[in-house]
Amino acid sequence: MEDLSTMQCEACRPEAPRVSEDEIRELHPQVPDWEIIEEDEVRRLQRVFKFGNFAEALDFTNKTGALAEEAGHHPAILTEYGQVTVTWWSHKIKGLHKNDFIMAAKTDQLLKH
Amino acid sequence: MEDLSTMQCEACRPEAPRVSEDEIRELHPQVPDWEIIEEDEVRRLQRVFKFGNFAEALDFTNKTGALAEEAGHHPAILTEYGQVTVTWWSHKIKGLHKNDFIMAAKTDQLLKH
Repeated sequence: MEDLSTMQCEACRPEAPRVSEDEIRELHPQVPDWEIIEEDEVRRLQRVFKFGNFAEALDFTNKTGALAEEAGHHPAILTEYGQVTVTWWSHKIKGLHKNDFIMAAKTDQLLKH
Repeated sequence: MEDLSTMQCEACRPEAPRVSEDEIRELHPQVPDWEIIEEDEVRRLQRVFKFGNFAEALDFTNKTGALAEEAGHHPAILTEYGQVTVTWWSHKIKGLHKNDFIMAAKTDQLLKH
């Protein structure tokens, strides 16, 4: 199975399919630190990243923002003292697309830089 | 009445008093775009700032972050495509301190720069 973090995020059309339960069972283990949550009836991938202070948290927010701009796919990023909560979902399909799993994997990679 | 945005944010001690209802009636009109919300039984000041895209939103997040670092008082900043939601409260007293109104006023000022 190809490493999610090396894949490209594709343009998401409104008619694109949400990931199926089978796909989730395949994809989720590749981003095990991400929780699948449901908010406003929309499934999302969410992870809390911990840091030592506010500046480090904000730095990670910027790295995640740069990743998002590069991919043309944007998460919600909650920056607080010592932590950043990143949430990915696909607005156009009101749910999870494979793209979101790819972006979650790429976000994990940011920790290594 | 002194302009809130010109005041300094003071170090907040755990025993510092929360703002009284009378103080809120005096302070809130100075930051009329901020809503007083209650989350997890803690009152907070919250405002949604709208922008044209993600990059502008992230730029405002950074300006707010710099303001927070300067004051040594940190909000929650939710960055999304086209908007930033800033929430101020005083963690140590689990509620609103005059500092939070000062920081809200200073956040408003960032829009003018």
